[in-house]
Amino acid sequence: MPRRWYNVVPALSRAPEKYIDTETGKPITQEYIERLWTKSMAAQEFSLERWISIPQQVLEAYSMWRPTPLIRAVALERYLDTPAQIWFKYEATSPTGSHKLNSALAQAYYAKREGHSRLVTDTGAGQWGSALALACQLYGLDLTVFMVRASYHQKPYRRYLMQTYGATVVPSPGPMTQFGRNTLAVNPNHPGSEATAVTESLETVRADESARMAVGAFSNHCLLHQTMIGLEVREQLAMINSEPDYLVASVGCGSNMAGLVTPFMEDKLNGVDIQMLAVEPDACAPLTRGEYRLDFADAAGKGPGVYTYTLGHDFVPPPIHAGGLRYHGCAPLIGQMRHENIIDAVAYPQTQVFDAGKTFARLQGFLPAPETCHAIRGVIDLANECAEKKRAATIVFSYSGHGLLDLEAYGRYNAGELRDVEVEMFFSELKTKAATV
Amino acid sequence: MPRRWYNVVPALSRAPEKYIDTETGKPITQEYIERLWTKSMAAQEFSLERWISIPQQVLEAYSMWRPTPLIRAVALERYLDTPAQIWFKYEATSPTGSHKLNSALAQAYYAKREGHSRLVTDTGAGQWGSALALACQLYGLDLTVFMVRASYHQKPYRRYLMQTYGATVVPSPGPMTQFGRNTLAVNPNHPGSEATAVTESLETVRADESARMAVGAFSNHCLLHQTMIGLEVREQLAMINSEPDYLVASVGCGSNMAGLVTPFMEDKLNGVDIQMLAVEPDACAPLTRGEYRLDFADAAGKGPGVYTYTLGHDFVPPPIHAGGLRYHGCAPLIGQMRHENIIDAVAYPQTQVFDAGKTFARLQGFLPAPETCHAIRGVIDLANECAEKKRAATIVFSYSGHGLLDLEAYGRYNAGELRDVEVEMFFSELKTKAATV
Repeated sequence: MPRRWYNVVPALSRAPEKYIDTETGKPITQEYIERLWTKSMAAQEFSLERWISIPQQVLEAYSMWRPTPLIRAVALERYLDTPAQIWFKYEATSPTGSHKLNSALAQAYYAKREGHSRLVTDTGAGQWGSALALACQLYGLDLTVFMVRASYHQKPYRRYLMQTYGATVVPSPGPMTQFGRNTLAVNPNHPGSEATAVTESLETVRADESARMAVGAFSNHCLLHQTMIGLEVREQLAMINSEPDYLVASVGCGSNMAGLVTPFMEDKLNGVDIQMLAVEPDACAPLTRGEYRLDFADAAGKGPGVYTYTLGHDFVPPPIHAGGLRYHGCAPLIGQMRHENIIDAVAYPQTQVFDAGKTFARLQGFLPAPETCHAIRGVIDLANECAEKKRAATIVFSYSGHGLLDLEAYGRYNAGELRDVEVEMFFSELKTKAATV
Repeated sequence: MPRRWYNVVPALSRAPEKYIDTETGKPITQEYIERLWTKSMAAQEFSLERWISIPQQVLEAYSMWRPTPLIRAVALERYLDTPAQIWFKYEATSPTGSHKLNSALAQAYYAKREGHSRLVTDTGAGQWGSALALACQLYGLDLTVFMVRASYHQKPYRRYLMQTYGATVVPSPGPMTQFGRNTLAVNPNHPGSEATAVTESLETVRADESARMAVGAFSNHCLLHQTMIGLEVREQLAMINSEPDYLVASVGCGSNMAGLVTPFMEDKLNGVDIQMLAVEPDACAPLTRGEYRLDFADAAGKGPGVYTYTLGHDFVPPPIHAGGLRYHGCAPLIGQMRHENIIDAVAYPQTQVFDAGKTFARLQGFLPAPETCHAIRGVIDLANECAEKKRAATIVFSYSGHGLLDLEAYGRYNAGELRDVEVEMFFSELKTKAATV
């Protein structure tokens, strides 16, 4: 198991985009960021060290399930009749079922070490929330989770899981914050979004000196912790004298993608031929449909702003089943790498995505999360391309999480009830609406 | 990974009890059993070979997730302040989330090799059904699953999983069989039980020459396949020069228990001090409350009968959340070992069981199935006993499956809505009812 995280920042050709303070219009201060996050996270966020040592207690916690296996999808290869080798990095063995625990444990550990008593966070479908709930339980911290209201009511399983680990879970928007109360006054049935949950988290942290915010994606430090994925893949491929031709991951905000690809970034920038492919839902696709510009991480525009690919911070994604990918923007580091054409991106409608996931489950046994199904869809198309070109490429993808708590969506897909969003119509309506406001 | 299953029968001091044909009152014939099960399963059922080779294709399928890890529950040990070492064999890494796949793959493989096109089975909460659904998909067999009606409607997630793997799932009792139609005519709201599902499976197999029945527990051959658990534990403990003092498993029918303990049986019978502890729910506890007598595996008394511990084949267990343990009897081999005092048994009410499971999840991260929580409850009491006696014993338990599809029950437990069955009242009412009929 790796004992250091890999920081890609020094390897890139330019410094990451600066976070802008909404109120001053200037880059945020050290004071600003340390009031929001723990000092350690603020330090890691701007670190220029290539390697950052993992604390012993975090290594011990990782050993609950790490290293995770790198598995060859032989049945899928046979089914596709492709000369390509398909490997998946199986992050679903984590106690909470996804890669999210890699960063949750680190953030909770540092918060405890700095003497904080409480963390606050946002969660969509609950992957991140359940990971942080376990981490806070292990290190003895209180946790408040703002969970997107629609998921809170419609997907109670991950809520029960967070509560079993001891977290306080509230729906967003909700009555706990001024922003939540205002939002509900205008629309009592507001379904919430990742962005409303971020806004409420910010407000809550600013009102409680002992609290700090933990983030499940977006920030450089969160992406840093996820490099466990790619670092292990490197070592595992080295053991069989292999190297990747393609690295594929789904992207919501980008922590999963960055975790897989950044440990290979220096190779790529030094000329090794590795294609890095991000796969998005077409209904919420900042990398393929968004713009690279200054935007906010939260819905209210009260948090820091930063340059990245975005659909606009007030974009409310249509209801698709990959809850973890329903975010208007992407992590600034991912945005930068996309902007510089280091990573490629492709988007698919959700029925094609579930079709890929079901095929995978029937062949390999493991039921992938809807988020992971996106990567699988991309991999299947790459493997078919390799079959046409008779190319024995090595494709590696991140199996970011299992789909056991998403079986409702599979049930709907099996029953033929799942529909694709009419993306062109959705986006043109959105533009018309924006123009008339 | 072991390449042979271990058959405990030759090690025992007497031959297993014979199956009795209900109609003739005599031991069942070879013809009878081969019409019910595949020939290979019939052969394994009565085999006197100590070791049975695992076919190469089954070994390859096992390698999807086996060997499973043996993990030391250090945080639980610290929390209990016990000198005992607590180890758990983590069977939840299987693609379908429990130990059931160990036998499902074997049964589907042999059915395919013998030229059958269809398997039929029963399932309670769906652990066994989903394992067999995957196995049938992998080997290209049709599968019909009779699922206990109450679970079919109230717990759709495992149904969706089975359907995703390609199985046909019907509620039991249901309109597909004469037994089902008759039962519904008397009580249209009959909730079903494992026993009604077995009866319907039997009727369906007898009406279709190409079909055979697959069984998720009870039979000797199913217990045989589960010895993968204990065989791996033996090797894993040997690697650290350790031996078990206690082996603990939950028991519904007993395949999980037998899988863990029988590979240690010769040691025990040769005088090594190993306590083998079965843990049951007090609301359905054949080993602690039942009688050792001739009884039937199914509700209608139309299948074979056999001597074992039983609460009576018409016993309808009260609604508790460990669906996999709601069966009136236990496997004849388990019954025999209990009758000869080789294995011990203890029973707990479900709130104590969920309390143990929640404690475990908060300390170790992994959320156990309600079935597995029974084993954990037993282990905690043993570890506390070791603390009192200052005994540095080695306790090993089977973590038979994860509880991710049982989060509804955890949600109810967290909300204080879970009630224990008033066991004494329940059983005395049952006796009164029986006396007045």
